[in-house]
This record gives sequence, structure tokens and C-alpha cells, in this order.
Amino acid sequence: MEELKQRIIKDGRVLNSEVIKVDSFLNHQLDIPLLGKIGDEYYRYYKDKSITKILTIESSGIAIAAITAERFHVPVVFARKSEAIKNPEEKYLAEVYSFTKQKQFTVFVTRKYIQPSDRILIIDDFLANGQALLGLAKLVHQAGATLVGAGIVIEKAFQDGGTLVRDVGIEVYSLARIASMSPDEIVFAE
Amino acid sequence: MEELKQRIIKDGRVLNSEVIKVDSFLNHQLDIPLLGKIGDEYYRYYKDKSITKILTIESSGIAIAAITAERFHVPVVFARKSEAIKNPEEKYLAEVYSFTKQKQFTVFVTRKYIQPSDRILIIDDFLANGQALLGLAKLVHQAGATLVGAGIVIEKAFQDGGTLVRDVGIEVYSLARIASMSPDEIVFAE
Repeated sequence: MEELKQRIIKDGRVLNSEVIKVDSFLNHQLDIPLLGKIGDEYYRYYKDKSITKILTIESSGIAIAAITAERFHVPVVFARKSEAIKNPEEKYLAEVYSFTKQKQFTVFVTRKYIQPSDRILIIDDFLANGQALLGLAKLVHQAGATLVGAGIVIEKAFQDGGTLVRDVGIEVYSLARIASMSPDEIVFAE
Repeated sequence: MEELKQRIIKDGRVLNSEVIKVDSFLNHQLDIPLLGKIGDEYYRYYKDKSITKILTIESSGIAIAAITAERFHVPVVFARKSEAIKNPEEKYLAEVYSFTKQKQFTVFVTRKYIQPSDRILIIDDFLANGQALLGLAKLVHQAGATLVGAGIVIEKAFQDGGTLVRDVGIEVYSLARIASMSPDEIVFAE
């Protein structure tokens, strides 16, 4: 998505070859018209797939998921992160290791909000090591629902998450795939 | 907002006189058309106030804020919660005590995302003891920006937060004010 790539070049701050901050428009301050165009693009790509629900994870995925869901006319469910789960028997749970925070946490969705008949689109802001996306996919699998695919805004294609999730058969549509980056240059993958 | 009150009566689960769960439509699963109507109502109420930015707090406020911001054509900033703040000199910080979780945490916004010229509308899902809203108001005050008012979806009018925030001069527009509740009955305030 060309407008997104140009925005990443203009406003993304590359701290080092691994870390890029996009908090001026994507995950702290939110450029709402840009999120609308992101939602339009996911809708264009997945509109014939009979999506019934959008699943994301708190916090950075929520705004993107909500605005995308307006296009699909479906509800959003956002998985919550917790270190202490109340009433685990009512929830689907998955362990996710965060490389950024260097700790394990549990993500959960209350069972009744994903039904076996659901056809799920997962939305998230970043795909790097793939752990969050794999955790969400596990929740969908536990519910017996169909995971149609994922919509990712920025994929760090130089990390192994993209390969990891595609190798287990998850369809991933990333709007900007970064092949490499430094404070001087961001190179996108084709 | 009558439709919201009816939805709270239909789908809210009152656990006791203090706790109501609305996670089927407001803060875990999200009813996107309902959030649209909530956004419409905030726009109707605040549209002549020259709002330049919507401020909320992760996670439950984000979807409501994003969809409301589409009506106002302004960006959203969501304050983050953290127990360890990196680069505090770049941020506005406020301490917030959570009665639900019985612990103190810090909320922050990166300084450059609230400017003195900003006219801020705060959006959140609940107003109970008022601590989160007061914390957000402190961030706005630190930035030297103008706090125009707050839009709250559900106010627990039997708790003291509403009085606390209105007493310091914050304009609060709550779409549903619960005067009292039990598993058998929810009574709304006028």
C-alpha cells in the first residue's frame, strides 16, 4: 500500500536495524483517515471471504480492527493480555512470549465470543516474530472456528515471523513489508 | 441514550451492586454499529466545541475513541499504562490508582502528541471512581492544552467519580448513568 509506505518513510523513526517507531500515526497517536484507507484495503482483499468476525489483540490492534470492521459489517473481539486469568474455564487461552518485553503472558478470549461457525480475520499492527499472531490463531483453533487470514499493517520481513506463520498455512496480507532498515534508509520487500 | 440503556438492560451482566459486565458489546466483543451511534451522539453534543484531538486510555477506550474521531475528523491519542516508563523526560505522566486491580500504575502520553493549542475531548467506556479520567485530565493540563470535556459511555452514578470530576470543573457527558443496580434490576439516573 503505497501511501502507507510513504508515511512510514516520512514519519517512522528507525532506532536501529530491528526497531521502528510509528507512534505518530499508528499505535499511540492515530491518523484516523489513514486507518480508514487501511480498512478499505483489507476489505478489498478479503471481501469475498465471508468474514463474520475480526479478532485482534490489545492495545495497538484495536483501532485498526474497529475501523476495518466497519467495512465488513462484523463485530470485533479483542483478545486481552493478562498475568492472572479469572475463570479460565470460560476462556480460550494461549501463551505468548514477547521478545520486546522479554516475558511470557497469557492472551485470552471469552469462549462465547468465538463460535465454531465464525470465519475469522485477524488484524494487527505489526508482524515480527509471529508469536502474537500464532497465539491468536490458537484461540481460533480452540474455538473450532475458521481462520480465513490475517491483515498486518507492517511486517518486519527480515524477522522470521512471516515465514513461521505462512509455513503453518496462515494467509497473511501485509500492507508494508520492510526488507531492511537503518536510521538512513527503509527498504521495502516486493 | 435510550438504545444504549436498553442494550445495557438486555446484555449487561450485573454481578453485584458494584460490578456490571458489558463485554458482549462494549469492551471485549465490540458492537461496531452501536459504537457508531455512540460516536454520533458525542459528535452531536460536542460538535461546536472546536475539538482538535480525542484522548483516551488503553484498552477499552480505544475503539470508541477511534470511531468517534471519524465524526470529528481529528486524530486520537491513547494514553498508555506502564509500570516502567522509558524516557520519562519525553512524556507527560500521571499516577492512577485502580480500585478494580488494587494497584497504582502510571499513564503517559508522549509530549509532542498534545500541544498547547489542542482542544481535547476525553473518551472512555466507564466512569466509576474517576481516577482514570482525573489522570487523563492531568496529562492535558501538563501539556497546557484545553480540556473541553469528556464523553463517557457508562457512568456508575452511585460511585463518587462523577461528582469528583465535575467538582473540579470538568464537563462530563455520560450516555447512560446507572443510579443503582442488582442482578434483578438496573435503575438509570435522570
